Amino acid sequence: MTERVFNFSPGPAVLPVPVLEQAQRELLSLPGVGMSILEISHRSKAFDAILDEATQGIRDLLGVPEGYHILFLQGGASLQFYMLAMNLLRGSGKTAGYILAGTWGKKAIDEARREGETQILWDGKATNYNRLPKPGELQTPRDAAYVHFTANETIQGVEFTAEPEVGNNPLVCDASSNFLSRPIPVARYGLIYACAQKNAGPAGVTVVIARDDLIRRAPAGLPPMLDYRQYADNQSRYNTPPTFGIYALMLICRWLKNDIGGLAKMHELNRAKAALLYEVVDKHPKFYQGHAQPDCRSLMNVTFRLPNEELEKAFLDGAKQHKLIDLKGHRSVGGIRASIYNAMPREGVEALRQYMLDFVRQRG
Amino acid sequence: MTERVFNFSPGPAVLPVPVLEQAQRELLSLPGVGMSILEISHRSKAFDAILDEATQGIRDLLGVPEGYHILFLQGGASLQFYMLAMNLLRGSGKTAGYILAGTWGKKAIDEARREGETQILWDGKATNYNRLPKPGELQTPRDAAYVHFTANETIQGVEFTAEPEVGNNPLVCDASSNFLSRPIPVARYGLIYACAQKNAGPAGVTVVIARDDLIRRAPAGLPPMLDYRQYADNQSRYNTPPTFGIYALMLICRWLKNDIGGLAKMHELNRAKAALLYEVVDKHPKFYQGHAQPDCRSLMNVTFRLPNEELEKAFLDGAKQHKLIDLKGHRSVGGIRASIYNAMPREGVEALRQYMLDFVRQRG
Repeated sequence: MTERVFNFSPGPAVLPVPVLEQAQRELLSLPGVGMSILEISHRSKAFDAILDEATQGIRDLLGVPEGYHILFLQGGASLQFYMLAMNLLRGSGKTAGYILAGTWGKKAIDEARREGETQILWDGKATNYNRLPKPGELQTPRDAAYVHFTANETIQGVEFTAEPEVGNNPLVCDASSNFLSRPIPVARYGLIYACAQKNAGPAGVTVVIARDDLIRRAPAGLPPMLDYRQYADNQSRYNTPPTFGIYALMLICRWLKNDIGGLAKMHELNRAKAALLYEVVDKHPKFYQGHAQPDCRSLMNVTFRLPNEELEKAFLDGAKQHKLIDLKGHRSVGGIRASIYNAMPREGVEALRQYMLDFVRQRG
Repeated sequence: MTERVFNFSPGPAVLPVPVLEQAQRELLSLPGVGMSILEISHRSKAFDAILDEATQGIRDLLGVPEGYHILFLQGGASLQFYMLAMNLLRGSGKTAGYILAGTWGKKAIDEARREGETQILWDGKATNYNRLPKPGELQTPRDAAYVHFTANETIQGVEFTAEPEVGNNPLVCDASSNFLSRPIPVARYGLIYACAQKNAGPAGVTVVIARDDLIRRAPAGLPPMLDYRQYADNQSRYNTPPTFGIYALMLICRWLKNDIGGLAKMHELNRAKAALLYEVVDKHPKFYQGHAQPDCRSLMNVTFRLPNEELEKAFLDGAKQHKLIDLKGHRSVGGIRASIYNAMPREGVEALRQYMLDFVRQRG
């Protein structure tokens, strides 16, 4: 087997080694089943147990209250941008409010506009999406279909540390890139969606946590594959769900519970990992120029620039020699981005920190 | 590891052991990459190579001509039922013709009706979907948006052995359950779609083969995740595709080419396997009552009933004791269904044949 590298990819991203090892052990035959997870019927008893444990795992880790469904879909956040508006905005006669904190929030509103009236409640464009709205800056409508925010913007590296205040409006969150990385008060949300391929599993499975009364408001006659109610009423099996992705997500939940000790502990580990890098940025602010304002720095995606593109290229080339992979910033922003999701081990972050310190000493 | 059973599930379904073994070996690290297929970026060089090989694999196996795109989507055939009509029927001012040969064809037309005018060209209902249209029975419109058929109906066990004659109309096929099981003349089709989880991979990836000029006719302004052009123009990476499913599909293509020797050979093996079971049905027609008329019997799903439900239950219970799993017919039809896709080894079919012969001797 090739030696494993430290994978700082923004997603699909690093997964916990014990999870990969268990999936590997079982790949020809699930214990007691005699078939691979890739082969079993989605209506078999073996898959019933996997789906139940994945659902309960999310419910336990996040403390999801009664009255909320946990749904498994396909298509990633990009399909949710549209499907959300199809279900909750179409025909509502209301407006949907969007907080634009970065690239993904903008993509979300673009899809919603196809289905009804939208309103930008706050836009970070003026400062190139390096900060989040402060209390009082956010004007919320009186009776919106929902208010949408992106919990963590992977490209800019800004992350909400608390839910925005939206009055009595249903709060909707694209939690794709910090889902299961910290506790959240689910009862404050109307609907949360997240693709799995950052903290929660491989690409190909999308989780929606939705309040029942909210999804029942959707117009009648939606195509079943785009109707949240069909997923809620059929335990995500109107048709064949992404069985392997749900299995991997189940293993991740088990790892978070048993190996890590829950989301509060995971959050603490993530804070400590991010601090290792932001300390270097703060120590060498002229060399490592952090993109996000300190009070809204992402624990998931640490973004910074170097004094020029030549140095950035040298930084990336040298990193590869140290087995520190996929650190290039998104093409729309440039610079460096270190994605350090749940499964990035502390030693990977320490190796990057050391490399950053060495690099500034040599080239700064 | 638990001993593997013979899995006659209609899908997700049995996969080739060499494919599972390779995926298992590489699950912690792709050779030379140092990351799992579950972890690599969909924009990495390693994934470029996988996507290219999967695409070329399908192209080579089916002899896909120039002018056709090979796309990888999510959501299964059930999402395609709707997406197809959204792209090719909406706003066309034309009608879409449907041939209803079983349960899946009916589901397909139900979704298309949301998007425009449809016409049932032939319906097998009168004989409980046990046969297919004969030449001359099919009336096709003069200028349809497309004519749709389901190549193999998994629930009833009927399969087209040749394309229906549809004049100059674009021919659209749901090939979900016999995709890559035999050669087809792709140039006769406008669009072919197939979920992978029968012959081509695990659940969670859907293949579309589409003629370029046809998908360019779609109305402007479709949501990108539901617009074939976005998949064609972005090499299926408008957003993160189901990376693991595409990898598994690539391995299946490699197995079909190298281990099997291509689709003509695969077809021959599939014909021989199916014959082993239909021979028993024909030898004991009062006991094993085949559902499909002999001239349209499926090579993929062999469906039959026993004289009464008590015997069917005894048959299924006994089968389990012989490690012959998931032989129960679909709840809407009852009886027995043996799904014997590409990866079902001949010895599995031989074991079932022997069990059928023993069972009729004891209970017939």
